[in-house]
Amino acid sequence: MNYILQFIEQNQDAFLNQLFEFLRFPSISSRSEHKDDVHRCARWLADHMKSLGIGNVNVFETLGHPIVYGEWFHSANAPTILVYGHYDVQPVDPLNLWETPPFEPSVRNGKIYARGSSDDKGQMFMHLKAFETLLRAEGNVPINIKFLFEGEEEAGSNHLDDFVEKNPELLKCDVVVISDTEWFADGLPSICYALRGIVLIEVKVIGPNRDLHSGSFGGAVDNPAEVLAWLITQLKNRYGRITIPGFYDNLLPLSEEERNAFRRLPFDESNFRSEIGVGELFGELGYSTLERIWARPTLEINGIVGGYTGEGAKTIIPSEASAKISMRLAPNQTASEISEKFINHIQSLAPPTVKIETVKLHGGNPVMTPIDSIWIKKAQIALKQAFGVEPVFMREGGSIPVCETFQRVLGASPVLLGFGLPGDNVHSPNESFSINNFFGGIKAIALYYKMLGQDNQTSF
Amino acid sequence: MNYILQFIEQNQDAFLNQLFEFLRFPSISSRSEHKDDVHRCARWLADHMKSLGIGNVNVFETLGHPIVYGEWFHSANAPTILVYGHYDVQPVDPLNLWETPPFEPSVRNGKIYARGSSDDKGQMFMHLKAFETLLRAEGNVPINIKFLFEGEEEAGSNHLDDFVEKNPELLKCDVVVISDTEWFADGLPSICYALRGIVLIEVKVIGPNRDLHSGSFGGAVDNPAEVLAWLITQLKNRYGRITIPGFYDNLLPLSEEERNAFRRLPFDESNFRSEIGVGELFGELGYSTLERIWARPTLEINGIVGGYTGEGAKTIIPSEASAKISMRLAPNQTASEISEKFINHIQSLAPPTVKIETVKLHGGNPVMTPIDSIWIKKAQIALKQAFGVEPVFMREGGSIPVCETFQRVLGASPVLLGFGLPGDNVHSPNESFSINNFFGGIKAIALYYKMLGQDNQTSF
Repeated sequence: MNYILQFIEQNQDAFLNQLFEFLRFPSISSRSEHKDDVHRCARWLADHMKSLGIGNVNVFETLGHPIVYGEWFHSANAPTILVYGHYDVQPVDPLNLWETPPFEPSVRNGKIYARGSSDDKGQMFMHLKAFETLLRAEGNVPINIKFLFEGEEEAGSNHLDDFVEKNPELLKCDVVVISDTEWFADGLPSICYALRGIVLIEVKVIGPNRDLHSGSFGGAVDNPAEVLAWLITQLKNRYGRITIPGFYDNLLPLSEEERNAFRRLPFDESNFRSEIGVGELFGELGYSTLERIWARPTLEINGIVGGYTGEGAKTIIPSEASAKISMRLAPNQTASEISEKFINHIQSLAPPTVKIETVKLHGGNPVMTPIDSIWIKKAQIALKQAFGVEPVFMREGGSIPVCETFQRVLGASPVLLGFGLPGDNVHSPNESFSINNFFGGIKAIALYYKMLGQDNQTSF
Repeated sequence: MNYILQFIEQNQDAFLNQLFEFLRFPSISSRSEHKDDVHRCARWLADHMKSLGIGNVNVFETLGHPIVYGEWFHSANAPTILVYGHYDVQPVDPLNLWETPPFEPSVRNGKIYARGSSDDKGQMFMHLKAFETLLRAEGNVPINIKFLFEGEEEAGSNHLDDFVEKNPELLKCDVVVISDTEWFADGLPSICYALRGIVLIEVKVIGPNRDLHSGSFGGAVDNPAEVLAWLITQLKNRYGRITIPGFYDNLLPLSEEERNAFRRLPFDESNFRSEIGVGELFGELGYSTLERIWARPTLEINGIVGGYTGEGAKTIIPSEASAKISMRLAPNQTASEISEKFINHIQSLAPPTVKIETVKLHGGNPVMTPIDSIWIKKAQIALKQAFGVEPVFMREGGSIPVCETFQRVLGASPVLLGFGLPGDNVHSPNESFSINNFFGGIKAIALYYKMLGQDNQTSF
């Protein structure tokens, strides 16, 4: 371990300078005017991987942005991990809120400021630097690693599923390691072991064959916006429980152990409330805020629209109204099961005054990894050694759809070994990444790779 | 009466040709590129009025389009009527759906086809032709008439209120006569004696200080779109009755006489339903469709919007959601009373998870004229004599805001003596006006003017 620490220590400037080079590419995947920048960034990344000794480096073209792949083969008996990350970034507007330009990285107050510093260039780059460190400091990387870096994560990962489905042999692995999540708090290394799934459905209520004059028809014809409002209130009872028949049938209940672990986390509810600017929180009765976000399924109206929404007034009964509704799923619900139950429920409520159409927009299953697997246990130890603090386990309420693709196609569970912090401003102006977490994370990952190559029964 | 009939008979071609000249002006008030056309139309109208012997003709400029005014003084002892109409028209798009060009009038199947033929050039022009007929056929018009024609009715009558309020002496009258409504059915002369009022309010539900990620917050934070949906369902009970406290306090109940009169009208509910394309009608329990539209107050969602409404999906809890809500008022509710009650009710429902803002957009009181007044009785007789059919009394569910202005400022009730037909396609392509109603209407109006000048006790 001394050699590892020493190598990182000696190469701090070099590592930072290389990261800065990487961060300078404005690889904004959702803006077509940055298509070339995304490609240049992919080629730089591939060249950098080659320079580290990673083999079989390829820039795979897709119908969207390229996928950069490379591998390190140690031995047929060693475990194989797939390291997934993304080199594309979010847009930067509003530009005027940035204190320093988003693609000119700078260091202030122990943080690296740049778009992508935390999400996800900084975090995926740590894997390359950990690989380099281990190889140079110890002369060997004792596992097989497949590096898979995509350029479309911030634009919906539209072509990754297809790539994974077409290349199961190439990507075959024992476990997927992803550094793209956050710690629960600064100074508190965290391992995320569960993500919620998602179902997204659009519900359209169709009434009269045109917008009707509310004077000539109002009072005698059912109003699609009113029907939609009523439908929405029929999806939860007054205790916040979802009333779709069978919705909770397959749900894995929270164990008392987990609930106790959640309670021990330093969560400040009044901070949480005031940061988002609401007077009272609201959710399913009988569960705490963290439980509601992390471990309970929920249903949200993401958008609603119908009738006249411009300036002033137009006195109509709208011909139709619609809502985009998402449900976050908790283990062991499945997207297909829940979307079917939702649609059946909505259709069973449809009154004869209107027609109701439903369109499935998106779906992804929840993900949960056993926290006592060897993959997680070694991550726990590596984090403790690197940061000197016992890591906590946490869940996240969001969804990382590729996790479910990896589980489904490759049969490999994810280890969510993230190093971001809640104040990193990902997706916002002034995105940053803690220098402490950057170098500590390189150390943790190098130790993790090393431990994965050692006998699984050994304790370190 | 023979001279009247004879004069109209002899001048049919001349009357039609003059109307066609009037209809050829594309006086679309809501389109700035037609500003000149509206002005040219106003000047033509003023010149035509002068040519008929109408005095004190003036084209009053406003901040919008001109108001054309003229008067006929008979005697200080005779009643004074204010004839109101509008010479501006609706836009014509989609142009490709017109069988003949909207501003090249043509006659087919007993109908005049042109934009404005029914709404309202054709109908207001009948008053000028009736005046001319009476003056030329009988040598006298035995009442005082003030003609007030505006050029902004289809663009919101923005400057008429101001004009009326600034000229109460000029416009002083005993009654206002308006020909801008429709008959209940073809062949069934109708007098409208009541219009609903209106209150328009925007309700905004404000939640978190930004759109929140539905993964990171969903389940723990109240959703403004869901709150709005719930608020909407709190405005009516399951019998369709509005639950705003005190909402019905001042409402004038329908008399049994009126309900019986409504029942005698040839209303075909299945036609009504299939024309608008809905499977079932829906409204306040205990009232028929015509009662619901004409005589019961109601509440409609005119528009609703919140969160992400674009293509695809965005998984957020919206920061806010809002609805434009209109209430149609029935006699004797008032706009100020109802908007206050509505706002109090909404605010009393506001949960501590959100803030609720309300904005008043518009208001107008309902209008009702006693059907046994001498003004209405004489209209009834004139219609019977002109068309040979006993006219029916009807209400309309819409609102004509200038009626309330005339009542408030001039203290004069309206006589709604319209000649349009339900199939006239007003505001749509292929607007038309029945030739039969055009000439019959001129006859009816001429007889009406004549009768208004005779002793009120006389029966005709």
